[in-house]
Amino acid sequence: MEPDALSPMADADQKNASEGNRIEEEEQVVNPWEVSAKGGGKIDYDKLVDKFGCQLLNPDLVGRIERLTGRRAHSFLRRGVFFAHRDLNEILDVFEKGEKFYLYTGRGPSSEALHLGHLVPFMFTKYLQDAFKVPLVIQLTDDEKCMWKNLSVEESKRLARENAKDIIACGFDIERTFIFSDFSYVGGAFYENMVRVAKCVTFNKVVGIFGFTPEDHIGKISFPPVQAVPSFPSSFPHLFPRKDNLRCLIPCAIDQDPYFRMTRDVAPRIGYQKPALIESIFFPALQGETGKMSASDPNSAIYVTDSSKDIKNKVNKYAFSGGQDSIENHRKYGANLEVDIPFKYLSFFLEDDVELDHIRKEYGSGRMLTGEVKKRLIEILSEMVERHRSARAAVTDEMVDAFMAVRPLPHMFG
Amino acid sequence: MEPDALSPMADADQKNASEGNRIEEEEQVVNPWEVSAKGGGKIDYDKLVDKFGCQLLNPDLVGRIERLTGRRAHSFLRRGVFFAHRDLNEILDVFEKGEKFYLYTGRGPSSEALHLGHLVPFMFTKYLQDAFKVPLVIQLTDDEKCMWKNLSVEESKRLARENAKDIIACGFDIERTFIFSDFSYVGGAFYENMVRVAKCVTFNKVVGIFGFTPEDHIGKISFPPVQAVPSFPSSFPHLFPRKDNLRCLIPCAIDQDPYFRMTRDVAPRIGYQKPALIESIFFPALQGETGKMSASDPNSAIYVTDSSKDIKNKVNKYAFSGGQDSIENHRKYGANLEVDIPFKYLSFFLEDDVELDHIRKEYGSGRMLTGEVKKRLIEILSEMVERHRSARAAVTDEMVDAFMAVRPLPHMFG
Repeated sequence: MEPDALSPMADADQKNASEGNRIEEEEQVVNPWEVSAKGGGKIDYDKLVDKFGCQLLNPDLVGRIERLTGRRAHSFLRRGVFFAHRDLNEILDVFEKGEKFYLYTGRGPSSEALHLGHLVPFMFTKYLQDAFKVPLVIQLTDDEKCMWKNLSVEESKRLARENAKDIIACGFDIERTFIFSDFSYVGGAFYENMVRVAKCVTFNKVVGIFGFTPEDHIGKISFPPVQAVPSFPSSFPHLFPRKDNLRCLIPCAIDQDPYFRMTRDVAPRIGYQKPALIESIFFPALQGETGKMSASDPNSAIYVTDSSKDIKNKVNKYAFSGGQDSIENHRKYGANLEVDIPFKYLSFFLEDDVELDHIRKEYGSGRMLTGEVKKRLIEILSEMVERHRSARAAVTDEMVDAFMAVRPLPHMFG
Repeated sequence: MEPDALSPMADADQKNASEGNRIEEEEQVVNPWEVSAKGGGKIDYDKLVDKFGCQLLNPDLVGRIERLTGRRAHSFLRRGVFFAHRDLNEILDVFEKGEKFYLYTGRGPSSEALHLGHLVPFMFTKYLQDAFKVPLVIQLTDDEKCMWKNLSVEESKRLARENAKDIIACGFDIERTFIFSDFSYVGGAFYENMVRVAKCVTFNKVVGIFGFTPEDHIGKISFPPVQAVPSFPSSFPHLFPRKDNLRCLIPCAIDQDPYFRMTRDVAPRIGYQKPALIESIFFPALQGETGKMSASDPNSAIYVTDSSKDIKNKVNKYAFSGGQDSIENHRKYGANLEVDIPFKYLSFFLEDDVELDHIRKEYGSGRMLTGEVKKRLIEILSEMVERHRSARAAVTDEMVDAFMAVRPLPHMFG
């Protein structure tokens, strides 16, 4: 499946933060705080890859990952959810030589409960950690959310800890995983690297990359180095002592690319390796291509706190259907899978390729009705959310402390 | 003596850092990186006080300090070296009620050796600590110097430690003093306060206060909150737990006022007390009003590493004299004390008021010659530098560690 077969919509939390930061362009706008397609339509991912200067993740690379890890590629790879990259081939070269690398991903903890779109990078990162058996650092940017949203320091820190529980519930290996919040970890070698990066980036440069304006507060302007430096192993002396050349691979949604374009630009100037990236499309809102997942509209997304009843209600009531307006027309023309949200959601979360392909054919040809597809989606999501909920309930405060403890990870490359 | 009887010249280290940061004004420019008088003449301190919105430190206030501390005011107070303030009366009110306060000063560690001008705030701060018996935090802004100068992180940290030895040699009480470098201390509660401050200050605002430009790197733009937050007791939870309303008094040269104007503007918006300030004039270069103390010209200043021979040579050769061009004229017209560097230096460092007054009269009337005044100055400075050198030699690495240890100060208010 091509990446653009999945309807790309902006993440709500990031959308809300973009006020005042918009760069007026004729083309689509994609940055960490704003994702908007040209004329309210679809994001053109090919154009984005071209503009950003990253590369499409082709089937050969997916095949190489399968050979090197000895396991089938994650469905997010096979189906083009993670569709673009920077220097992934170099990471694989390193791995092939037995030299390992580390993973870095993160989250801005702006809301109490995660929605399904938030889980996508973590589900994929867990697969990468398991497949490559490499260490992982997860940054919770509580400082960023404190600065962009009207949140107190205390509330931001609380949300970071709550979100850490959801992240741990994704199944990360405590022997290979260090979770940190900026408010708890900034300092020491990490702060030194922030300063090294900040020296190399002018205000004009961050205006060009992020669309900041002179009316923006200096907290925003100070932040990009904070997200940049986990790309450098020397920011984690307790994990990677004397491993300054260890390569870093960052799984993230493509809206985060600007941070790492900046990071890659700076890295060689301060004697560091450029991080590699593997980047995903955006997860669509229930309302479809013209809808937005919005923190102020709980019906725009499925949350990991939703009950099965909530899920059933949201999918049946709000999931935008590509089916026709009458059964007669539907049987005749089939569903428009390009815009159909239930099918797109299944493309993310239905593991079985055979069943997904069956639905594609049957629903696309009109033999299957929207109700049937929604029913199957409700089953899949309910099961997934229930699994997450019970995993999260098992995450104790002690486990959070353990994942967030500044400690060596003795077997991380084992 | 009025403040402007002392020739005010910019500190060299700060001058050098100002490239590209100059705000063009018809009037004099005074900010942390540039000090330049109108038309290369003298700084007009009255105008500066008026422009900055601080207050002149009048004799009544000096008298109140003497009454409250039960000791004679420091010569820097009596002679107008520390000549301006903000809210000093409130600090004295607090002290009078028995509520105490804390002191905060600092240094940008940009050079190996300090010159006499660098010692001025520390000598005065030691007096304040002894007189009021209050705790003191000293910030070494190694991050700032790393960002403004072409210094590596490692070199900046090394200089901070070297400078700490000179500061300790000024005689601070280890029971009441916490010295920290930003690279070693930024993090935790301190970083939280940095974020709280940064949220309240726009790029436009720092352009107005500090003269930053869009070509400046974001390290510079990020820095003001780092210098702001030691003004808040909650940045030091190991020193001032549950003392969020403790007042802070900052002794500094008046070029640092912009940082604390910003800090005082932000403080009430984040629920904190405004810091009070007591501000000094600048220490003049040997070459006098038109000279600049310059790190690249060791003959522009007396360093604490200079030998007695160096001092003798520098004073005799470079100290700008207000004496007349012939003995005959000198006897007739007397020395111009307004521009005479030997006399100005004596005004800073000759403790004996009677002797200083004697020199003022004799030299000003022409009965005393420049050579005699220089001879006395050489004695004073040699003794002072020798005292400093032997005090510094007694400062061990263990003492530096002890002053810089993050620890409670059990008897700091005793």
